Amino acid sequence: MSYEVRSLNEECGVFGIWGHPDASRVTYFGLHSLQHRGQEGAGIVANNNGKLIGYRGLGLLSEVFEDDQQLEKLAGQAAIGHVRYATAGNGSVDNIQPFLFKFYDGDLALAHNGNLTNAKSLRKELEKDGAIFHSNSDTEILMHLIRRSQKETFLDRLKESLNAVKGGFAYLIATEDSMVAALDANGFRPLSIGRMVNGAYVVASETCALEVVGAEFIQDVNPGEIIIINDEGLTVDHFTEDTQHAICSMEYIYFARPDSNIAGVNVHSARKKMGKTLAKESPVDADMVVGVPNSSLSAASGYAEASGIPYEMGLVKNQYVARTFIQPTQELREQGVRMKLSAVSGVVEGKKVIMVDDSIVRGTTSRRIVNLLKEAGAKEVHVRIASPPLRYPCFYGIDIQTRKELIAANHTVDEIRECIEADSLSFLSEDGLIQSIGLNFDAPYSGLCMAYFNGDFPTPLYDYEEQYQASLKEKISFF
Amino acid sequence: MSYEVRSLNEECGVFGIWGHPDASRVTYFGLHSLQHRGQEGAGIVANNNGKLIGYRGLGLLSEVFEDDQQLEKLAGQAAIGHVRYATAGNGSVDNIQPFLFKFYDGDLALAHNGNLTNAKSLRKELEKDGAIFHSNSDTEILMHLIRRSQKETFLDRLKESLNAVKGGFAYLIATEDSMVAALDANGFRPLSIGRMVNGAYVVASETCALEVVGAEFIQDVNPGEIIIINDEGLTVDHFTEDTQHAICSMEYIYFARPDSNIAGVNVHSARKKMGKTLAKESPVDADMVVGVPNSSLSAASGYAEASGIPYEMGLVKNQYVARTFIQPTQELREQGVRMKLSAVSGVVEGKKVIMVDDSIVRGTTSRRIVNLLKEAGAKEVHVRIASPPLRYPCFYGIDIQTRKELIAANHTVDEIRECIEADSLSFLSEDGLIQSIGLNFDAPYSGLCMAYFNGDFPTPLYDYEEQYQASLKEKISFF
Amino acid sequence: MSYEVRSLNEECGVFGIWGHPDASRVTYFGLHSLQHRGQEGAGIVANNNGKLIGYRGLGLLSEVFEDDQQLEKLAGQAAIGHVRYATAGNGSVDNIQPFLFKFYDGDLALAHNGNLTNAKSLRKELEKDGAIFHSNSDTEILMHLIRRSQKETFLDRLKESLNAVKGGFAYLIATEDSMVAALDANGFRPLSIGRMVNGAYVVASETCALEVVGAEFIQDVNPGEIIIINDEGLTVDHFTEDTQHAICSMEYIYFARPDSNIAGVNVHSARKKMGKTLAKESPVDADMVVGVPNSSLSAASGYAEASGIPYEMGLVKNQYVARTFIQPTQELREQGVRMKLSAVSGVVEGKKVIMVDDSIVRGTTSRRIVNLLKEAGAKEVHVRIASPPLRYPCFYGIDIQTRKELIAANHTVDEIRECIEADSLSFLSEDGLIQSIGLNFDAPYSGLCMAYFNGDFPTPLYDYEEQYQASLKEKISFF
Amino acid sequence: MSYEVRSLNEECGVFGIWGHPDASRVTYFGLHSLQHRGQEGAGIVANNNGKLIGYRGLGLLSEVFEDDQQLEKLAGQAAIGHVRYATAGNGSVDNIQPFLFKFYDGDLALAHNGNLTNAKSLRKELEKDGAIFHSNSDTEILMHLIRRSQKETFLDRLKESLNAVKGGFAYLIATEDSMVAALDANGFRPLSIGRMVNGAYVVASETCALEVVGAEFIQDVNPGEIIIINDEGLTVDHFTEDTQHAICSMEYIYFARPDSNIAGVNVHSARKKMGKTLAKESPVDADMVVGVPNSSLSAASGYAEASGIPYEMGLVKNQYVARTFIQPTQELREQGVRMKLSAVSGVVEGKKVIMVDDSIVRGTTSRRIVNLLKEAGAKEVHVRIASPPLRYPCFYGIDIQTRKELIAANHTVDEIRECIEADSLSFLSEDGLIQSIGLNFDAPYSGLCMAYFNGDFPTPLYDYEEQYQASLKEKISFF
Repeated sequence: MSYEVRSLNEECGVFGIWGHPDASRVTYFGLHSLQHRGQEGAGIVANNNGKLIGYRGLGLLSEVFEDDQQLEKLAGQAAIGHVRYATAGNGSVDNIQPFLFKFYDGDLALAHNGNLTNAKSLRKELEKDGAIFHSNSDTEILMHLIRRSQKETFLDRLKESLNAVKGGFAYLIATEDSMVAALDANGFRPLSIGRMVNGAYVVASETCALEVVGAEFIQDVNPGEIIIINDEGLTVDHFTEDTQHAICSMEYIYFARPDSNIAGVNVHSARKKMGKTLAKESPVDADMVVGVPNSSLSAASGYAEASGIPYEMGLVKNQYVARTFIQPTQELREQGVRMKLSAVSGVVEGKKVIMVDDSIVRGTTSRRIVNLLKEAGAKEVHVRIASPPLRYPCFYGIDIQTRKELIAANHTVDEIRECIEADSLSFLSEDGLIQSIGLNFDAPYSGLCMAYFNGDFPTPLYDYEEQYQASLKEKISFF
Repeated sequence: MSYEVRSLNEECGVFGIWGHPDASRVTYFGLHSLQHRGQEGAGIVANNNGKLIGYRGLGLLSEVFEDDQQLEKLAGQAAIGHVRYATAGNGSVDNIQPFLFKFYDGDLALAHNGNLTNAKSLRKELEKDGAIFHSNSDTEILMHLIRRSQKETFLDRLKESLNAVKGGFAYLIATEDSMVAALDANGFRPLSIGRMVNGAYVVASETCALEVVGAEFIQDVNPGEIIIINDEGLTVDHFTEDTQHAICSMEYIYFARPDSNIAGVNVHSARKKMGKTLAKESPVDADMVVGVPNSSLSAASGYAEASGIPYEMGLVKNQYVARTFIQPTQELREQGVRMKLSAVSGVVEGKKVIMVDDSIVRGTTSRRIVNLLKEAGAKEVHVRIASPPLRYPCFYGIDIQTRKELIAANHTVDEIRECIEADSLSFLSEDGLIQSIGLNFDAPYSGLCMAYFNGDFPTPLYDYEEQYQASLKEKISFF
Repeated sequence: MSYEVRSLNEECGVFGIWGHPDASRVTYFGLHSLQHRGQEGAGIVANNNGKLIGYRGLGLLSEVFEDDQQLEKLAGQAAIGHVRYATAGNGSVDNIQPFLFKFYDGDLALAHNGNLTNAKSLRKELEKDGAIFHSNSDTEILMHLIRRSQKETFLDRLKESLNAVKGGFAYLIATEDSMVAALDANGFRPLSIGRMVNGAYVVASETCALEVVGAEFIQDVNPGEIIIINDEGLTVDHFTEDTQHAICSMEYIYFARPDSNIAGVNVHSARKKMGKTLAKESPVDADMVVGVPNSSLSAASGYAEASGIPYEMGLVKNQYVARTFIQPTQELREQGVRMKLSAVSGVVEGKKVIMVDDSIVRGTTSRRIVNLLKEAGAKEVHVRIASPPLRYPCFYGIDIQTRKELIAANHTVDEIRECIEADSLSFLSEDGLIQSIGLNFDAPYSGLCMAYFNGDFPTPLYDYEEQYQASLKEKISFF
Repeated sequence: MSYEVRSLNEECGVFGIWGHPDASRVTYFGLHSLQHRGQEGAGIVANNNGKLIGYRGLGLLSEVFEDDQQLEKLAGQAAIGHVRYATAGNGSVDNIQPFLFKFYDGDLALAHNGNLTNAKSLRKELEKDGAIFHSNSDTEILMHLIRRSQKETFLDRLKESLNAVKGGFAYLIATEDSMVAALDANGFRPLSIGRMVNGAYVVASETCALEVVGAEFIQDVNPGEIIIINDEGLTVDHFTEDTQHAICSMEYIYFARPDSNIAGVNVHSARKKMGKTLAKESPVDADMVVGVPNSSLSAASGYAEASGIPYEMGLVKNQYVARTFIQPTQELREQGVRMKLSAVSGVVEGKKVIMVDDSIVRGTTSRRIVNLLKEAGAKEVHVRIASPPLRYPCFYGIDIQTRKELIAANHTVDEIRECIEADSLSFLSEDGLIQSIGLNFDAPYSGLCMAYFNGDFPTPLYDYEEQYQASLKEKISFF
């Protein structure tokens, strides 16, 4: 995934383990495989015989844990960890998770992937009642609800609190004697459980993290479930029975790692099928198929295979991270773009190219890549997008909450084609997407959340309703 | 290229520009696209109206130039830059190039890609005569020769000195009023010249750097040539006429970026052809073709295309850099390996897999990857290597100077197969390699250096001769 | 003050300013002059037109604000700042102040110098009622009390809360439209107000900070007072009238900077008088007076002046900070000590030396210095301590809360003399101390807290009572 | 010494040890006590059984050796070290010493304190003959001379080379089997030898370094001497017999640490005598004597003792390092000055103050301090300088090489008094200085270099002659 040139980002990945002598080190490996889900900061909280100890910091996991010393200090037989994505400017370590709380009656830690739709009103209510928040993340809310609950047991307090928060959430909680995972009633975010040879339980946002640590996949956490793991083993409970699958389709399209399985469907294979279906829906005569690295390579190879047109490396992404200083001239700014992604003139020169990408947000990136290809000598550039047009915002954990940034919200496919300067443009159909992924839950769209494409939100929007309605009335032109 | 798990590495990339108001910034972009050629350190020397100013440091380019301030100080209309590869442990900034010299009669700077075969004897001779060296790089030697030459002009001194040094070298020199490039008599290392829209001349180790900065390719520097660029324009001279092309075949196979052209041949296309040829030479019945990311993806797609077997993403490389702490247990060490590269069980499970890689050095990496695939459920793993077996060391700029590290130097293909635990193993033939690259210079092997595979060194080995002869007699077993 | 070799340390300094265009920069200067009060961390919160923005970090002020960029961001016409002392190991940035809170109804920030005696019970009570703390500092408590108070105005809530907390405290609070200072009912900690030429008000832990920023001293904050500063000017209010001065005598003896005035008494002059009184109380025949740098130089020069014995530089403290690695041998450990403080053999050789120090805690430092002098050739070393023996712990803001670390708690003066290997030893009398400082408040000991020396605590000890009583019964021997 | 506000600085300190199992750690301690002689950079070269290994870096010793790891690597039974002072802007690690050279016939390292007067012409000559220099320090010259010498033995080559370099120098050289020290023919810079209990020999710029490491003083290195230390013991040789003591008087006045002895004279005692003599030469009626911290405290206490006027702490220097950002307003700049040094109004208010300082360079610092005292309320400020007026530049190792920066070069004492806004001003007489130090070498000025005060340079000035003559003709006004 080329984060530098994209504007869609998800908010976080979580990883937890119970029952391993090197719990924090295993968590480090697991989080590393989830690094694509968040690069703003990372943290680990270890459970050392009932005492929770944590370390967190800004930056990539490898920057936060620069040497082995910090991991050395996080000794313990259980741990939870978190990688965080956040929009630029928020960069305070106060928001980096897991959050660790030291109460007179014990320690608690909390990690969260997702976005609450009633966070603002809950927070205001709590503050009015004397609560003090220390971050601007909505994750803290759950802990305030738990601590203020009048229920007797921790589990009952947790259930009450989980019913109070709305939206998309996958929580991972460390208590002194257990690890608890919980998923929202729609299962927007993926969350899976595995088991290691030594019996340790592992919970992770994606199954790729299970494979990295050598854990065998056991089951996905289902909507509305609470999973309690402790020295007695694993118990499945639930905080609601009013559930319905609505798995974020963008996980399949763009976010998740290709080697992960979500709800039993391999992500690479799903993407390859999207490419194949796209080839059938929108064929075009050309010399080669080129994928936009890295997230579109599966779809591109699918398109190539189905169409019989050769798959070529017409775009190369520099594997090294580049700093992007503010450049004084337009020429230097263009070089800065090519420094990250360049078109291979030795491959595309004089050729008709099918450029396969996974999605279009603003269109600026697509236009840039089309132009890179043309500057490198491509005769024609036919853009094929392996997902339907993005027309609506998301409030369940993806950071586009306004339609202003979505070119397809305001423009026809042909207008977009003109804007990105392509010779032709097609998107995958909604049905094509659903068929390619191939879920079969007894729920709308076979269990996928398609709101991004059709505005059919699976839940009320609460605090966001007003903002959403206003955005529907906005008339924005990208021209 | 997965540097963490490989043991072949090249020594450096160079980039220079003459006649651009932001010369250092353009050099920064150019060097970034050459970062794969060296990660130990980087530096830039700018020419500010005849005064040379430099900055260099250990680490990746983006670490050396952490913010814009250093580039800001390197103002000037010309610049040369360097990225350096070095074996671990040498880590002193004294060896980072370009070397900058301040003489009473003017400034000079020097950057070098390659390896001299008579460095040791030249250095001893010079030291006996009172010379003081300040690095343990062989690059300094040329400057001592130039400064001690009795010839009248700088150019004549340079020519005399270039005739004294032997081996593989691509030099880039900054003087107060010019930029000079020079290539050894065999052209072991690539070196190309481009021109920008504003008229600026650019010299770079690979053409990908020309594309990044928007320069049009003009010509390759030929064996034995000296290119002088100054305000008068570009002049082609030579220090010897006794030349013969022997371009390093490993540049095509492994080192160079796929978007570069070397001697007019696109690297991705050459690799794809190697894969196609390999498919013809060594077919096998299987369900899918999987390339080892990233350097073998072109060859793998070629194999897939030629064989008609689907190309799948059965191996995923983590795009984020991971620190490799020393791990206390075998289990953690294995997780550390999977953290960087993991097999996709959702793709390979129950399948017969053709695993395409570019080369085998010690065999340990290959065995690890074969095992990753098998642990992920692959039924059979057939390894296909898109180059001939590596049997001999290199003395022209690649850091394997002993046969001890080359499994193919001591073992048959079947022994290697056993060692890497593959179900079958084939290498590309020497002829297949030469045909796939398709050079047609009037020289042995059409202009390629094939010494790695057949020991046919295009030059005498000078200081290395003794060591080489000894290595031929060694009997080493990898079992 | 030689922090490296001492074990008494105070907890923090505060500085605030209202009404200055460069409020944060002035705060930086003010805090720098209070750096001796805390080196663990530092922070500044600025008020930018009602919006509070903050920055804090671990380390010295100059390490936290490494370049001008952070101060640049803290624009605003008011600011509060804090330097924190803490015992080793607690090193989390979560405890660094000022604490900044973002509520739905406005921003608040809080900085604190002192120690609460009922913190533990208050915190437990609050947590039972659902409060969540984010640091292990007792400073947060006040904010929870304020936010939970049912009073109508902020001022009334603050007053109620200040009456709930017990012990020693000097608070500095930033609201959106004012800066508020408050001092405990005994005035344990110093807190002074000044005014700048431009009309800006300044509040600081010590008057040296007023002088540094060019502010004229207006008044000390009195016990029980609340000072409200806003665009209307300065208002003096109070939260209790049940007050009685008990200024920490250790501020005069050791903590405060010599150029500060506390309650109108200059610290250097007070120390010099302690030295003079000590000379009268405990004369001894000798060749020279030597002060232990830096905190005892005033007392030593007073002793010299009153006794007529020459004042010499027989001990030199290295002005540069030294890292103290764990040294493998006893010889190296001794060198490590001398690296920081060395005796001047050229001065003391063959002489009878009066060594003046401000206090003795464990006695180990004194013994070390006596031995340094003897190794350098001193014939006799007569130790004179310019304060009475430290026999009791402190609970109002100094970090010795157990008698175990106080040699004088368990041993006679003669036993201590033997322990520190001095030829003679005398302490200043309690009366001598009170007279030398010369306060004249209508309160016990003229307004000084003498509990350190005589156990006469001016307040109940609340949560510490039990621990204190236990400590009285302990029998510890330093031999 | 208040480096931040002064403009006189010396170039370096050296330390070496032979025959100690922790040679580098001992060198670290020794260098730390010489840190006042140079803060730009530091380095250590250890001799590990004949192999020299080194580490150096920019910044204070404690910044260069941030943790124990670097020292750990510098194992060996001998070591030499260096702290370097340099004017701002030169900040390249290339100039940090010791310089370490790896020749085919062995390793050599070199550290240098001083300044050569014929460096420029020697370097040009050497470069014309093919030599390549890698720093802009003049230290490298000696190594080029040694390596080019035709003499047979290392010692003979060294002697020949030492006779070729002119000016002030104290060299410390590490060879594979010995440590060699050499001092110029006038002994401008101090250099002393000590011996540790275990028999190890130590060489250091100042005796304070001997004391720190517990070494007993043996002898000073005399002008023209070469000291060879190896496993056989210590040998005294010489490279010239044409010697005459001319010890830099500024070492006694300002540079050296008060606990050092130079030529058998303790620096603190010499300074105290300067103060006493000054009191006799220039008495004045006043309430107190105040020394400018830290370098003038000895002289001030001498003045107080001789005059019977009380010695008070009227100026306080902040012991913490402050960063000096460029301040946007004059008010902030003044606060920045006071942040480092402040006057104590509680002490000086309403008083007649005698301010004792060691020297006046430009006069700007003196004026600032006089004004600090007056702003703090001093009624009168009488400045007494414990050295004669500085009128001439120095070419032997102190960084004022022009008369432009010396107010006394161009102005009478009364003009200076006016400039610094003092009520009266007196300097110590030249005779008073010589008597106070009390050397008795058979040489002009009893063996002191007085050129700073009277222009009587003990040697020809070589490359500086022209520049010096020109400076004599300059007419600069400080008004």
